[in-house]
Amino acid sequence: MEFKFSIAVLLFCWISKSTFGDITDNEIDQCWLPENLVNEIESYAPTVNKIINETVNGLYKGTTWQELATFVDKFGPRLSGSQVLENSIDYMLDKLVKHGLENVHGEKAILPHWVRGKESATLLQPRVKDIAMLGLGYSVGTPKGGITALAIVVKSFDELRERRNEVPGKIVIYNQDFVNYDETVLYRINGASEAAKFGAVAVLIRSITPVSIYSPHTGMMTYQPNIPKIPAACITIEDAALLNRMADRGKTILINISMEAQTLPAVKSRNTIAEITGSESPEKVVVVSGHLDSWDVGQGAMDDGGGAFISWNSLRILKALNLRPRRTIRTILWTGEEMGTVGSHQYIQSHTADNEKLQLVMESDIGTFTPIGLAFTGPENAKCILKKIMSLLKPINATGVRNPNEGPDITEWVDSGVPGASLWTDNGKYFWYHHTNGDTMSVEDPHALDLCAALFAAVSYVTAELSVDLPHKN
Amino acid sequence: MEFKFSIAVLLFCWISKSTFGDITDNEIDQCWLPENLVNEIESYAPTVNKIINETVNGLYKGTTWQELATFVDKFGPRLSGSQVLENSIDYMLDKLVKHGLENVHGEKAILPHWVRGKESATLLQPRVKDIAMLGLGYSVGTPKGGITALAIVVKSFDELRERRNEVPGKIVIYNQDFVNYDETVLYRINGASEAAKFGAVAVLIRSITPVSIYSPHTGMMTYQPNIPKIPAACITIEDAALLNRMADRGKTILINISMEAQTLPAVKSRNTIAEITGSESPEKVVVVSGHLDSWDVGQGAMDDGGGAFISWNSLRILKALNLRPRRTIRTILWTGEEMGTVGSHQYIQSHTADNEKLQLVMESDIGTFTPIGLAFTGPENAKCILKKIMSLLKPINATGVRNPNEGPDITEWVDSGVPGASLWTDNGKYFWYHHTNGDTMSVEDPHALDLCAALFAAVSYVTAELSVDLPHKN
Repeated sequence: MEFKFSIAVLLFCWISKSTFGDITDNEIDQCWLPENLVNEIESYAPTVNKIINETVNGLYKGTTWQELATFVDKFGPRLSGSQVLENSIDYMLDKLVKHGLENVHGEKAILPHWVRGKESATLLQPRVKDIAMLGLGYSVGTPKGGITALAIVVKSFDELRERRNEVPGKIVIYNQDFVNYDETVLYRINGASEAAKFGAVAVLIRSITPVSIYSPHTGMMTYQPNIPKIPAACITIEDAALLNRMADRGKTILINISMEAQTLPAVKSRNTIAEITGSESPEKVVVVSGHLDSWDVGQGAMDDGGGAFISWNSLRILKALNLRPRRTIRTILWTGEEMGTVGSHQYIQSHTADNEKLQLVMESDIGTFTPIGLAFTGPENAKCILKKIMSLLKPINATGVRNPNEGPDITEWVDSGVPGASLWTDNGKYFWYHHTNGDTMSVEDPHALDLCAALFAAVSYVTAELSVDLPHKN
Repeated sequence: MEFKFSIAVLLFCWISKSTFGDITDNEIDQCWLPENLVNEIESYAPTVNKIINETVNGLYKGTTWQELATFVDKFGPRLSGSQVLENSIDYMLDKLVKHGLENVHGEKAILPHWVRGKESATLLQPRVKDIAMLGLGYSVGTPKGGITALAIVVKSFDELRERRNEVPGKIVIYNQDFVNYDETVLYRINGASEAAKFGAVAVLIRSITPVSIYSPHTGMMTYQPNIPKIPAACITIEDAALLNRMADRGKTILINISMEAQTLPAVKSRNTIAEITGSESPEKVVVVSGHLDSWDVGQGAMDDGGGAFISWNSLRILKALNLRPRRTIRTILWTGEEMGTVGSHQYIQSHTADNEKLQLVMESDIGTFTPIGLAFTGPENAKCILKKIMSLLKPINATGVRNPNEGPDITEWVDSGVPGASLWTDNGKYFWYHHTNGDTMSVEDPHALDLCAALFAAVSYVTAELSVDLPHKN
């Protein structure tokens, strides 16, 4: 009887999983929570429903999109080190105060100041053609007049090594296939130094994206120690393929690359902080975060205007609904993320003493499309509580919890044992627009932003209000 | 009994239609053909299968893509009036002779010679920002230094008329929604004159596409008689939306547009012709066609390199297979299509006496993606024969026949009563790349091109070999 019952329950769970998607990770939920905790979490349903209704259908419907559009249209892209980023931070500090948030302040972070300058790439042989390009963050520039050199096209680091004897004095063009971002981005990050080891004078790297309408992508690169620093830029999928075909036909490929890129002295910036201070344990904190800086192309609406704006708007909505939980909810709008999580690194390092008091740290930085749930890293017992909390998001069908966290700015916290969760959305088109001029408000959908803001508001509220702390260890 | 049988047959047909897609037009096929014609058409199945196998799996597998890539990589874009277009025509004439095609020659066509020159658009207020743009074919340029003027943003021609009093001296920005190409392209075609009627000094038009990664599209425009000619360019979806949002917020929008565009004296070009001469009635002709010219952006690989190359390759494959039908198969690679079907107009007008002898005219100009069948205009009895012929394409699942023809270069023939059919493919992404720098070989798929070439080869062969002429009238 018990066996049969279990089978029936398992079957029901499996059907539920398929139908409603509220159990993920391809596993049957192994969680057990005390009945009083289960009951407590379920008792937040009316509050969560109120948060959802006000955000998605009520007074705040569409406001995240409107606020974000006003912001990115006013400032445009906000590169680390630029005055416009600092102006946009001033605007946000003012905005957060005006919305009645508490403890609003900037915390100093020193940022690198890389500037693009004018740049161009031109195919000179076998025929003259402009090559659309975007120099990479931290890249050195070329001498005035640029570098004119023959080019070699490779499909992989393996091919580069096999053909190392052909590399000296040449521009290396990487036409690697797009496998996935984490794997393929290594060509953008390491391509320059790997080619410079064999004597290359510059690199052009196929943009890290599965889809292109002749759209070059920028992003960060790094130089390895003791290897000559050579200029590095991304070109379009289309031109990488064109140059590869020309090379395959035995054509001589001659290219001029001209880049004014340089790194200026470091500048002072700020991480932007605001809170709803906890009523009982204000020293215990739930963090919701995204970054305000962006690349110097497009509007930085998707990366990461959306993440930053759902974060602070979730506090604004809770504040407007007079929902003050026991613990503090803190929004952090990071600076300097695109140059290597520079702002968050400095913030986290200067607050390590408070790590034990962090309940949960959240981040959104891979798109604010229709939300599915959260991507979590932390102990299983914390995950079980989070899963139960996420079941309250059933009205917006965003109850998923999967591993691992994918938030770059909270990674240091997560690595040091703080439970961390990044927003999980239906972001299949994210890399189409990522680090391009196409990262604009046209990618952002008002309803999806409302859903994401509702999720962040609900999870941060319940987690901050819960009678028990979210455990840092099993 | 008969009634029941009919129901069963109808039901079977309906299922067949749904499953195999070989009856289209949302209708049950009403065709009746003489048994001997049905038998004759079915007797071509082994020949059609041979054409398909050799094209898709055999000796010619991938050759259309390879030939096309070699061509567009060598010449790049081929604007009407340009020397590179003429060079590419010389290359094709040579290529067609080398492949043993017959009666290879160019037929003179006089083309307009519009040139883009340097061009830029810059937002000056409320903040400084480059606006990606592409001037439109036939547009006049601006004075040196450009036009700097306040802008008004409208969503439609109706809104333009309602706000006509605000227009004098301004740049009009059209941010019309994309409904479909035929409807929305009217903003690109007529937008300049409609705005100039009310005193506008220039127009910027949202590109005619449903999808953008900050990608401006060019295309042709026309000036209405006795209306001042003002400069016209397309901008991206993203910037049209941005400017509209700024206007909605009451911001003053100041823009500089600078265009060197001008129309130079007309030049001589050529339509490129090659044939497999008919064995019995060489004066009777089946035409397969696409255009060689392109816009001056991208590579003109999709529009219309693919169409031109499946056309001549279908003859090349038939020739190589020693398939010489009773009637002549003629490939025509049109010139001057993008400037208003200028080359085909002159060809058709100079050959009207031969219209009666045209069996079927075919064209591919809306993409060479996976083929579905043909889009046909002509009498029902001709359509019935064509449907039966198309049933032979079952092995590649491309048996569809729908109305009407969508081939711009053959429209004059079709309007004068010649049966005409354009290639029907799964071209849902066509307008993503159309008239952009993204129109490159990266859009073209080798297998899809093989399938399209096989379809053109098979249909042209069977139609040219058939014992009866395709009727021009019911």
